[in-house]
Amino acid sequence: MVGVDYLAGERRTAEFDVAAMKIVWAGSRRAFEISDRISKLVASDPALSKDGRTEMARKELFKNTLRKASYAWKQIIELRLTEEEALMLRFYIDEPAFTDLHWGMFIPAIKGSGTEEQQKKWLTLAYKMQIIGCYAQTELGHGSNVRGLETTATFDPQTDEFVIHSPTLTSSKWWPGGLGKVSTHAIVYARLITEGKDHGVHGFIVQLRSLEDHKPLAGITIGDIGTKFGNGAYNTMDNGVLRFDHVRIPRDQMLMRVSQVTREGKYVKSDIPRQLLYGTMVLVRQSMVRDASYALSRAVCIATRYSAVRRQFGSQNGGQETQVINYKTQQSRLFPLLASTYAFRFVGEWLKWLYTDVTQKLQAGDFSTLPEVHACTAGMKSLTTTATADGIEECRKLCGGHGYLCSSGLPELFAAYVPACTYEGDNTVLLLQVARFLMKSVSRLGSGKLQAVGTIAYMGRIEQLMQCHCNVQQAKDWLKPSTVLEAFEARAVRMSVSCAKNISKFTNPEEGFAELTADLAEAAVAHCQLIVVSNLSRNCSKTFQGRG
Amino acid sequence: MVGVDYLAGERRTAEFDVAAMKIVWAGSRRAFEISDRISKLVASDPALSKDGRTEMARKELFKNTLRKASYAWKQIIELRLTEEEALMLRFYIDEPAFTDLHWGMFIPAIKGSGTEEQQKKWLTLAYKMQIIGCYAQTELGHGSNVRGLETTATFDPQTDEFVIHSPTLTSSKWWPGGLGKVSTHAIVYARLITEGKDHGVHGFIVQLRSLEDHKPLAGITIGDIGTKFGNGAYNTMDNGVLRFDHVRIPRDQMLMRVSQVTREGKYVKSDIPRQLLYGTMVLVRQSMVRDASYALSRAVCIATRYSAVRRQFGSQNGGQETQVINYKTQQSRLFPLLASTYAFRFVGEWLKWLYTDVTQKLQAGDFSTLPEVHACTAGMKSLTTTATADGIEECRKLCGGHGYLCSSGLPELFAAYVPACTYEGDNTVLLLQVARFLMKSVSRLGSGKLQAVGTIAYMGRIEQLMQCHCNVQQAKDWLKPSTVLEAFEARAVRMSVSCAKNISKFTNPEEGFAELTADLAEAAVAHCQLIVVSNLSRNCSKTFQGRG
Repeated sequence: MVGVDYLAGERRTAEFDVAAMKIVWAGSRRAFEISDRISKLVASDPALSKDGRTEMARKELFKNTLRKASYAWKQIIELRLTEEEALMLRFYIDEPAFTDLHWGMFIPAIKGSGTEEQQKKWLTLAYKMQIIGCYAQTELGHGSNVRGLETTATFDPQTDEFVIHSPTLTSSKWWPGGLGKVSTHAIVYARLITEGKDHGVHGFIVQLRSLEDHKPLAGITIGDIGTKFGNGAYNTMDNGVLRFDHVRIPRDQMLMRVSQVTREGKYVKSDIPRQLLYGTMVLVRQSMVRDASYALSRAVCIATRYSAVRRQFGSQNGGQETQVINYKTQQSRLFPLLASTYAFRFVGEWLKWLYTDVTQKLQAGDFSTLPEVHACTAGMKSLTTTATADGIEECRKLCGGHGYLCSSGLPELFAAYVPACTYEGDNTVLLLQVARFLMKSVSRLGSGKLQAVGTIAYMGRIEQLMQCHCNVQQAKDWLKPSTVLEAFEARAVRMSVSCAKNISKFTNPEEGFAELTADLAEAAVAHCQLIVVSNLSRNCSKTFQGRG
Repeated sequence: MVGVDYLAGERRTAEFDVAAMKIVWAGSRRAFEISDRISKLVASDPALSKDGRTEMARKELFKNTLRKASYAWKQIIELRLTEEEALMLRFYIDEPAFTDLHWGMFIPAIKGSGTEEQQKKWLTLAYKMQIIGCYAQTELGHGSNVRGLETTATFDPQTDEFVIHSPTLTSSKWWPGGLGKVSTHAIVYARLITEGKDHGVHGFIVQLRSLEDHKPLAGITIGDIGTKFGNGAYNTMDNGVLRFDHVRIPRDQMLMRVSQVTREGKYVKSDIPRQLLYGTMVLVRQSMVRDASYALSRAVCIATRYSAVRRQFGSQNGGQETQVINYKTQQSRLFPLLASTYAFRFVGEWLKWLYTDVTQKLQAGDFSTLPEVHACTAGMKSLTTTATADGIEECRKLCGGHGYLCSSGLPELFAAYVPACTYEGDNTVLLLQVARFLMKSVSRLGSGKLQAVGTIAYMGRIEQLMQCHCNVQQAKDWLKPSTVLEAFEARAVRMSVSCAKNISKFTNPEEGFAELTADLAEAAVAHCQLIVVSNLSRNCSKTFQGRG
């Protein structure tokens, strides 16, 4: 084995432009400076120390988080932090807390679905944290299938109120963060029933607890759903259960931007296109791709440093043992994860741009790119969060026994990260959404109606890609980005076409789709990996352009 | 989708011989009856309740384990449980504890490496738990490479004592379970130095704490290494750190069955073949394969039941939603794990037989099958523990959000299981040991010296396997076991041969091996999977023989 002293390499950094790479990673010099400044602020503040977090009982841990969250809130005000800086502060405090839901779900839901009047009333209170809100959508029996929610909101024209009710055990709200112990209010999703008709799921602002003594209001039962994976991780969060026994709220607490119920109980839809609501979903999911790259980068950083410091076997003539980073088995597991970290970071930045682009188009009434953007964001969320969860665990294993200790940071990182594979769309369900989009695209291709642009541009070259042969003769031929790209394109198109052909053998296409979901999920992964690879390839040539 | 009501299927069990399957799983009717009886004993005893385990602070959790361990010990005596029943009791109590190391490592080490005199003295104390022992091998800087241990045991002929010393930080003993808080004694592995010469690593019985006040003895520093992955899991165990500052022990506390130091300080090797010591390693690893099947079976059982009860999407005309077990994506992930559970169980039983067989041969002085048994056990330990750790996590994900709650049982099962991938041989290191055995076998095949029997019998048909073509035309052709077996054999032999060819291109074969470890590990996996498949195939035909 040709040994390379990677530690010495780290000391010879002059030639390698580490500072420039930091800025590439952050996205811009400004972003780097904010991140750097806030990280130092958090690291140097004893009130935000993370020591002992994994030794605490659940109750103590939760109290500790309450203290930190209110301290952070005071800091944000005292130091007059911008929204971006405040976000960074919470990122570095690195403890899931009720505030994540208050700022990340409760407020955006009111912003997105509330009328101007509702926004004025409720956001004023929420911004000052005079009320604390959570987001009560998921029920014990209903996760991915939001249309299956059972909680009801029945309009009573006698009193001009909605009656919120949990008719079954499975209709209990289950999981909302911030609900179990802290929130005073919630956005509750419930089936709107008026004039005897079920109009499907709508959002309602419901007060849960008294602002005097914090006790649940009459008819409301709340609990904490218990401990979750990991020592600290999401156990700092009060995920809760919530049941309603005919709880009455005023009519104007239904979020009425998109549809309304009149004083008489008439259900009215406004002319605001429902597609606008998809914007929020795209926004949240693209931020999860960014977060995936951050989480994976932390694990890879720990595993890489460990691999450089740790030595095992290979001592010759009584000398030092070999750094484990020199072992090919270590490299073949670690280095692809290191590459993925950058690849996901670039995809995240590109998705941010894509979101801005589609938002502008939506505001101009152009919905043409929405299906592609929606499929692409769903696919990237699924691919990157799955790869990151698996990657963190792989990094943990790459640190041998030491990775099993909480002091390595990896067990907590894993346990706090994995729910990302489930929330905001179960990763398998999302892959099937991508697959559905791909099958539609292939069918339009057949009928000559496909606009092969954006992430499905490669489908325009279907004939070439179905027939091309890989020209690789030796390992170094893979260093040509166009060769790699073509291989990924050919694979993606062939898998989609094969699925489409197999579906067409069924009389009922829906039945065919259901029978072939395992293959369809694989075709979706191939398409998503192609997006990642083409982004990485584009960004590498941009970043290293002119550096020889 | 053709919906099948699996719950209804469960109620129609009369035709399906569940009782017989339970006995197949347990290994025998007797084993089933013991397991069944002890499981009910544990489940019905409030003193062994598992409630609240995931909510406790570390200290409280640890005290709870101490209480349970001593209660279990009393039960074993009061109920006069046999060794087999006692093992089952600890299995169902399901909490890692210092007793695992006392009974599973400390006592066996004395039995295996102590002289008759040493056994008489120390085992008497240990059996009555008048002393509690742990196994202090791993050091902070030395895990897989046992030969690299740095702790020294220098013989002092003046006083007829060994001086145990930790010369560096990296020589600190790190990880031993039972060490941090409980053990009074340890088997300490240290470099034996006498007459100025280093004779490599040997075992010593060292008293750590006073039997009066439990305080560490002079020159001994002990600590707990902190929290580990998961809420409860291995946090019930006091994994510890241990340092020696010139600690003196009598000469007769060196384990002297295989080699001795005389009163004058002469190092003498007995004529007991060192291969006999490999027996213990084989014993422990084969038991880990059995434990892998148990752990995976628990996860698969939870995920399968959840998949049958959980319904999501697919409601038609207001009817019930589809059971998630009916989704192909769920089946394609869950069913292979269900099959693996049985496959690993059969391999475990076969390894138990193999261990008995090799032990008898060793005792008769026949060492011929040892290399194959050693490679096979190492490979099975690696393959089954990796697949089980990944499989438990996959089962957790198959339960959607609910799998993230500790109440599902899955987070704890995962966190408590994963260290099995590292202890008793890091899984990657073990695969490379298998690869080394395979490369030797291929090279002997070339020189006509290979005895192609046992798990490498297929290498005897190398010419056929290098050339054969797969005859599968349609899916159902895979239902023929011989077709599957041939595919696995052809893959294994081709991967081994390809690695051997590539190694031969290097002038230095060791360098070639090191460069190709990533490929070699894959070839080893192929060989190991073949062993699992051929075992499963053999057992299925045996179990279902004559059932039509």
